Amino acid sequence: MTSSHDSETAPDINDIREAARRLAGKAVRTPLLESPLLNQRLGGRLLIKAESLQRTGSFKFRGACNAIAQLDAAARKAGVVAWSSGNHAQGVAAAAALFEVPALIVMPPDAPAIKIDNTKAHGAKIRLYDRASEVREEIGAALARERGATIIKPYDNGHVIAGQGTVGLEIADQAAERDLAVDAVAVPCGGGGLTAGVALAMAAESPGTEIWAVEPEGFDDTALSLKAGKRVEIDINKTRTICDALLTPVPGEITFAINRRLLAGGVAIGDDDVRDAMRAAFREFRLVVEPGGATALAAVLRGRVDCRGRVVVAVCSGGNVDPLVFAEILSTGQT
Amino acid sequence: MTSSHDSETAPDINDIREAARRLAGKAVRTPLLESPLLNQRLGGRLLIKAESLQRTGSFKFRGACNAIAQLDAAARKAGVVAWSSGNHAQGVAAAAALFEVPALIVMPPDAPAIKIDNTKAHGAKIRLYDRASEVREEIGAALARERGATIIKPYDNGHVIAGQGTVGLEIADQAAERDLAVDAVAVPCGGGGLTAGVALAMAAESPGTEIWAVEPEGFDDTALSLKAGKRVEIDINKTRTICDALLTPVPGEITFAINRRLLAGGVAIGDDDVRDAMRAAFREFRLVVEPGGATALAAVLRGRVDCRGRVVVAVCSGGNVDPLVFAEILSTGQT
Repeated sequence: MTSSHDSETAPDINDIREAARRLAGKAVRTPLLESPLLNQRLGGRLLIKAESLQRTGSFKFRGACNAIAQLDAAARKAGVVAWSSGNHAQGVAAAAALFEVPALIVMPPDAPAIKIDNTKAHGAKIRLYDRASEVREEIGAALARERGATIIKPYDNGHVIAGQGTVGLEIADQAAERDLAVDAVAVPCGGGGLTAGVALAMAAESPGTEIWAVEPEGFDDTALSLKAGKRVEIDINKTRTICDALLTPVPGEITFAINRRLLAGGVAIGDDDVRDAMRAAFREFRLVVEPGGATALAAVLRGRVDCRGRVVVAVCSGGNVDPLVFAEILSTGQT
Repeated sequence: MTSSHDSETAPDINDIREAARRLAGKAVRTPLLESPLLNQRLGGRLLIKAESLQRTGSFKFRGACNAIAQLDAAARKAGVVAWSSGNHAQGVAAAAALFEVPALIVMPPDAPAIKIDNTKAHGAKIRLYDRASEVREEIGAALARERGATIIKPYDNGHVIAGQGTVGLEIADQAAERDLAVDAVAVPCGGGGLTAGVALAMAAESPGTEIWAVEPEGFDDTALSLKAGKRVEIDINKTRTICDALLTPVPGEITFAINRRLLAGGVAIGDDDVRDAMRAAFREFRLVVEPGGATALAAVLRGRVDCRGRVVVAVCSGGNVDPLVFAEILSTGQT
């Protein structure tokens, strides 16, 4: 079975369905969780798509696995190169290990220790780079050239987007199993790969559903680009956020072409609301969600994506957070 | 459809299958999670049955729901009474709310605040009792008599055991989906209801599988009873444990009759190993597991239930732990 689109072009729903077949038995069909108590408080129905329970602790395994599964024997032997602050790194490392493909990952030294450690543990080689003086895309491209290796881009890759889109297929299936019509899906957004994949899947399976991209305040390049109608680059050094997974200055080309067409809009969320959402995920769902993975839940809890009288899905996209960081957030403030 | 056994007698596999049909669409089919990295370290395959993701945050919802679903209209109107340190309380309260049945729960005032709060939030009335001067079973019996209400015992109830047994059915199904033969299942054990239910289900679906009951040190009444061949009562005031959910002095009559026949043995685990297991569940599986819910995982991680070269399931039976307690455990020591 081959995809109708390559890694350089936007996937369609058939690519996502093929990705789902490739991932069967490899990726976790993560549960869609609900809390009657929280629903009462929200005056609607909130469903959590718990991608923190995915293999490697984030949705990134899906896209990486779908991309690496399609490499031919020669490409597998030559290996893959990726750059990532941590979740794509682990996804690529774990998928590469599954297919016995050598992996080399370019990571910043200030990535959470848990993400660097797990990437190494999957057998990937790591090249650390200096955020201030080096550009990770250039390092990655040079390393790939030297080796004849395939670059697995973190979001601007059709195979990766198709893999992330399986999250949307599962949401549509799991909602249908409960006879639920989903009014909106809120998705944590960095480069926009998960958002685009989910939007493509939902557009096919549940065309009336709104899709919202949720970014950290100061890193809302997708929201600004949606408003401007074109890709806007922002200066991400002006501000800080605890959402280490979502530090992108500009939407991807492929992802933005999809998101521009299919999204209801973008929402920017502050770190305090992210911390509240992490505490709510702990308390109401017994889930460990990392800061970047909790932005969509935060948007719903804060009423920025309206849940009243509606059925809303919040994707909790990852759970790789250092224990001491999580402990500090649990210890300060209560939901 | 009616069960072949009442609440006062041991269920069989058909009662568990009927319970599964009653729970469909109400209980979460919790995922069976795996970590390739942890498997490497263990030299075997460890699968986590994540009942911390169950509705109300523990397996107890299953048994309570199966019991309350079988009450007739008059009994539903008269209501239910239960006693519990917290997880059965929440399970009964949530199931009662689902069937619009009034619930009154007898709880100790030193139960985790999160458990008392959630039980109230589900609409149940709570009667606190003094552990030193009062006996909760007597209070509960008197309250039930006054009201003509039905007592839902936490473990020594055939309908409750059958409900908990659906955990075992799901383990057998989920292992079969992956073509895995399960060598052993480790189960956190208090009164023995979950253990007995899982043992009954696995005996029917996967007869070669060993079932291990895992208790806190000093509260190993089931392990001692298995050795003695009869129910042994222990003095639970001699020692302390962080496993608040597993403080039973003596196995149930119905549960022990099942467990005596079907278990491979019992294991007692200290609090430090439980804390290590909670940290491992956080790090390797992004799961919030409460102390009592982590005993089975602790037994596998410590090699007390042997995983080397084998396929072992550890049931993580609940995730209701106060945020500050969890934060402190995350902050001290590393796995």
